[in-house]
Amino acid sequence: MAVGPGSIPYLEASAHPDVGAELLGAIESLYPICRSITGDGVRETLNILKRSVPIELREIPTGTPAFDWTVPREWNIRDAYIKDASGNRVVDFRSLNLHVVNYSIPVKCRLSLQELRPHLHTLPERPDWVPYRTAYYRDDWGFCLTHRQLMAMPEGEYEVCIDSSLQDGHLSYGEILIKGETDDVVLLSAHICHPSLCNDNLSGITLATKIAQTLLPLNLRYSYRFIFAPATIGSIVWLSQNEAIVKHIKHGLVLACLGDAGKSTYKQSRRGNAEIDRAAAVVLRDSKQDHRVDAFLPYGYDERQYCSPGFDLPVGSLMRTPNGRFPEYHTSGDNIAFMDVGSLTDSFVKVLSLIHVLEYNRTYINLNPKCEPQLGRRGVYRALSDRKADGERELALLWVLNQSDGRHSLLDIAERSGISFGALRDAAEVLMDTGLLAEQSRGLDQNAG
Amino acid sequence: MAVGPGSIPYLEASAHPDVGAELLGAIESLYPICRSITGDGVRETLNILKRSVPIELREIPTGTPAFDWTVPREWNIRDAYIKDASGNRVVDFRSLNLHVVNYSIPVKCRLSLQELRPHLHTLPERPDWVPYRTAYYRDDWGFCLTHRQLMAMPEGEYEVCIDSSLQDGHLSYGEILIKGETDDVVLLSAHICHPSLCNDNLSGITLATKIAQTLLPLNLRYSYRFIFAPATIGSIVWLSQNEAIVKHIKHGLVLACLGDAGKSTYKQSRRGNAEIDRAAAVVLRDSKQDHRVDAFLPYGYDERQYCSPGFDLPVGSLMRTPNGRFPEYHTSGDNIAFMDVGSLTDSFVKVLSLIHVLEYNRTYINLNPKCEPQLGRRGVYRALSDRKADGERELALLWVLNQSDGRHSLLDIAERSGISFGALRDAAEVLMDTGLLAEQSRGLDQNAG
Amino acid sequence: MAVGPGSIPYLEASAHPDVGAELLGAIESLYPICRSITGDGVRETLNILKRSVPIELREIPTGTPAFDWTVPREWNIRDAYIKDASGNRVVDFRSLNLHVVNYSIPVKCRLSLQELRPHLHTLPERPDWVPYRTAYYRDDWGFCLTHRQLMAMPEGEYEVCIDSSLQDGHLSYGEILIKGETDDVVLLSAHICHPSLCNDNLSGITLATKIAQTLLPLNLRYSYRFIFAPATIGSIVWLSQNEAIVKHIKHGLVLACLGDAGKSTYKQSRRGNAEIDRAAAVVLRDSKQDHRVDAFLPYGYDERQYCSPGFDLPVGSLMRTPNGRFPEYHTSGDNIAFMDVGSLTDSFVKVLSLIHVLEYNRTYINLNPKCEPQLGRRGVYRALSDRKADGERELALLWVLNQSDGRHSLLDIAERSGISFGALRDAAEVLMDTGLLAEQSRGLDQNAG
Repeated sequence: MAVGPGSIPYLEASAHPDVGAELLGAIESLYPICRSITGDGVRETLNILKRSVPIELREIPTGTPAFDWTVPREWNIRDAYIKDASGNRVVDFRSLNLHVVNYSIPVKCRLSLQELRPHLHTLPERPDWVPYRTAYYRDDWGFCLTHRQLMAMPEGEYEVCIDSSLQDGHLSYGEILIKGETDDVVLLSAHICHPSLCNDNLSGITLATKIAQTLLPLNLRYSYRFIFAPATIGSIVWLSQNEAIVKHIKHGLVLACLGDAGKSTYKQSRRGNAEIDRAAAVVLRDSKQDHRVDAFLPYGYDERQYCSPGFDLPVGSLMRTPNGRFPEYHTSGDNIAFMDVGSLTDSFVKVLSLIHVLEYNRTYINLNPKCEPQLGRRGVYRALSDRKADGERELALLWVLNQSDGRHSLLDIAERSGISFGALRDAAEVLMDTGLLAEQSRGLDQNAG
Repeated sequence: MAVGPGSIPYLEASAHPDVGAELLGAIESLYPICRSITGDGVRETLNILKRSVPIELREIPTGTPAFDWTVPREWNIRDAYIKDASGNRVVDFRSLNLHVVNYSIPVKCRLSLQELRPHLHTLPERPDWVPYRTAYYRDDWGFCLTHRQLMAMPEGEYEVCIDSSLQDGHLSYGEILIKGETDDVVLLSAHICHPSLCNDNLSGITLATKIAQTLLPLNLRYSYRFIFAPATIGSIVWLSQNEAIVKHIKHGLVLACLGDAGKSTYKQSRRGNAEIDRAAAVVLRDSKQDHRVDAFLPYGYDERQYCSPGFDLPVGSLMRTPNGRFPEYHTSGDNIAFMDVGSLTDSFVKVLSLIHVLEYNRTYINLNPKCEPQLGRRGVYRALSDRKADGERELALLWVLNQSDGRHSLLDIAERSGISFGALRDAAEVLMDTGLLAEQSRGLDQNAG
Repeated sequence: MAVGPGSIPYLEASAHPDVGAELLGAIESLYPICRSITGDGVRETLNILKRSVPIELREIPTGTPAFDWTVPREWNIRDAYIKDASGNRVVDFRSLNLHVVNYSIPVKCRLSLQELRPHLHTLPERPDWVPYRTAYYRDDWGFCLTHRQLMAMPEGEYEVCIDSSLQDGHLSYGEILIKGETDDVVLLSAHICHPSLCNDNLSGITLATKIAQTLLPLNLRYSYRFIFAPATIGSIVWLSQNEAIVKHIKHGLVLACLGDAGKSTYKQSRRGNAEIDRAAAVVLRDSKQDHRVDAFLPYGYDERQYCSPGFDLPVGSLMRTPNGRFPEYHTSGDNIAFMDVGSLTDSFVKVLSLIHVLEYNRTYINLNPKCEPQLGRRGVYRALSDRKADGERELALLWVLNQSDGRHSLLDIAERSGISFGALRDAAEVLMDTGLLAEQSRGLDQNAG
């Protein structure tokens, strides 16, 4: 039996007064760790999350094939710096892990500024920010620094050190499976490979964890599978390792960039009209907040893999400002100060409300389909005829009765009527209680699938 | 054989110069009668209409079941008043029947103003209007008065009398059936339960009567069934009494609020794209007047019952300003002065034009489908090539020829071309006369259904 | 084997720097000839075109039936004038062939101005322009002149001469067939009946000729059939003479009014969503120029015949300003000075680009459909991850890979992605070269048809 009414609230921020602050705290604790697509930073991150939720860590050996890809060597780093002639660290990995190009090979040498220059990355147009750069699949190395740092470096010789290792090891990712009433799965996926960057994607990692923690004690209709994996190679490895169970994924959501102050953005799945796409559009509409719904684009986060033509999963993406559309993106500007507690709370409420729609989207049968039933007699409707029945509650009752012919789910009714999904779901509960409505047997429930 | 060309004009107000004044006269004669969902006021109204058209009165006994409902006791009223200490009628049913709450139980007592107060209904924001209130399915009583009247009532004792009766009797409704060429029925339905209120719905009652009178002498393709019944319970009773013939209803229209000065509003059927919905949209477009087309909403008039999921009939609603959207709605402000003769005429013309579309919407076959026929040679087309064929008449000929492949009805062509249905119908007549066009045999006429 | 990459450029005006001037030269050489729906002017025109391309002339005898029509008598004219009392030619066919109503019967008489007046056509609102008038299917005669000429004609007797002949002969039209890899035909049709008028339609005639000349040396997927025939009767005769091969026409385009300075207009085929309609919309969108896409209308040029219901061919029309929407239309104002060299070039580029889309619109299969392939490894993708992959080239690769599941053609992808068809086609070539993509076998290619 699925959860009872109210177990998963719909667009009720007041039900989660502290969630934003809690998420910010979690982001702060994970911020200093140097993550990459492999290595100890990922393990450390997953182990911290494991204190809150039962994440299972998977370790996939270097060289394991994954479709067109191969699990790379594992990268770890202990220290990195550029020292000037006086031995001062003018660029220091220990102060900010973005300073080293992610996946840099080990280096230990002395170079003139001229020789060093091709390995230095800055953002001249944002002179106080350090860019975030990677060199995953090429043997290269480099440093990222602010443009002001670079400008302040005199000619001369520098001591360059990257104390990293690139060796056979493992790619690590985490999984949580919350078993529900059925084997049908809702997938929630957050990439975990970025070092000290908050919006992208400590916001997604911590929010997914909090959602898992919230769902764990509930009796759910769907099973929920959370994936915490490095972007691209991680989801590709997960899909290659789990091909047999992919067919159970009925809905999915990539969680990223959920903490900036911008409005919510939902990016549609490749299908464009999957139930997750329609549910997200209704949740954002019902929020009565400004928002965007973007069409699918084969560029972005791991929806690129889930929505590749060989899988074509109904996986969308919830964000606030999408990747590449905020100046702080992939720079040191994407830090703790960039996080907005209200946005974190609101993103959590929206993801939970989306799950509300998926859990409660059923198709009902009006058991009194010929003409309206006498609602007044049953006490579900105001007995007085002298008040205008213009309240959303009354209209929700009439809409559910009118459309419940076995061909329209609550989500269909929400789309047609413009009435909040939550109000329609409440109306359906009331009508079920009075015996005027029955849930259509699942065997026939073609429309909600 | 159906009517010939021109029998039912299309959007020709000049064909009915006196209809607005005639409708207003009929509204005036019915205005004083105290109607309700049952009782002598309904019978009196139907008997007056019977002088113009052959209405059959049906009497359904109290207690008769009708789906989830039961025919209630019959309510009749002779007098009602509130007398002050001096014996003056300060509220008097005889001056305006809205003064008593419709379906009030009998009352005869003396009450202080304080005791009486909960039974008095006013509109403080419209201090000169008397509200219209009902108490159909609860044993209650009350008076409606202007807010000014209430303010002028001093403290003290009042004599209260409602000389009504609530007894087993009948629910009355009227029907007209005009037999056409086929058993396929066009339903026209007007609610008849409101006392002294003009727009809602003496306008609908009198307009439906006049339409019936207009159609009676004609040879028609469709049969036309007119229902004059109390709102909600009346249409529910009608449907329960006539379930076997409901399948013949191919198109339907609820007529209400047709006399105010506002623009025309068509409210779609539950189906949304039924032929009646498309025909109404084309008529309103062709009128070149400002108008609204509203999506279906399971709230309003008797379309709520006709469009309940167990029937799902293609029944829309034609109004000017819809229920609840004009301040005079359900108040004494909805009186004779609120009626606009021009609107009554125009509403009549539009209903008749809608019937024109239903009657004449056929699918034709171009008998010369390969390339255009030589219209000039046949004299149907201007012989001169030096005038621009930009007239709607010429384009109508070309559109009918181009689209008449057996898959497009005249209504389809009207929608695609933007050309007036009337002009297309004229073109089809001309092309039939020249032998260039044939009507598709009805057995194959899938598209017009 | 079809043409290789780049054989037909996409929206590259720089590939044809001289084409506008060349087309203008061709228009100038054909301008003086007096064409009509039959006669030596048509033959002379076709013979001039034959110097550039292998046009075959067809001669269809007077009296030959063509569906509802019959090939008319052939009209030829040697001279025509109106002489005043002094013997001066006040209206002279030799100075401008528009001066005589096309298809005028022979006349030789003396008339007073009053008797002559009904035979004189002017444009009072454009007093310096001579109108273009015809009298094809009625025995009539007349002169066209400027309104100023008319105003200057004193009362008195005039000598009127039209030295024409109307005799059994032939209707002439020209055809070019360029055989491609398949028998599927792209039809390009230009009407050839107008005398000294440039935009309508020397622009279409010369442009079609230049397109044929351009395609001739190429290896093409489609066969291309060019028709140079008089408007209406010519396309009707062609269709009646070629009914058996009409089924091979997969796409078609009527070319007219392609030289004025207005923006491009594409008029859709009767089907509205044929591949030619979609291809034209994409070409115009990709041009990034202002343009119009007009819905089908059964009025215009020979698309009226190709799109008659008995054929319903996917034939659209490319124009700049359409017939009747520019003041110079069917007047002496439609002359050499009205032609815009830039528009002629641009129209040529667009027609060729439309052919590019038709030739290269294929459906591909992503051979690595599960997750994205590792493009960096193959060198088709930038190896550096520190640059934003926001270039259209990168996105084109991702879109082609994502959508190539055998159900989406390149045109489908162009519509969905908003990316230029040319960029997508380049991406498909690159992916084919790397072995990541294969063309779907034609037997299964349902979507591109």
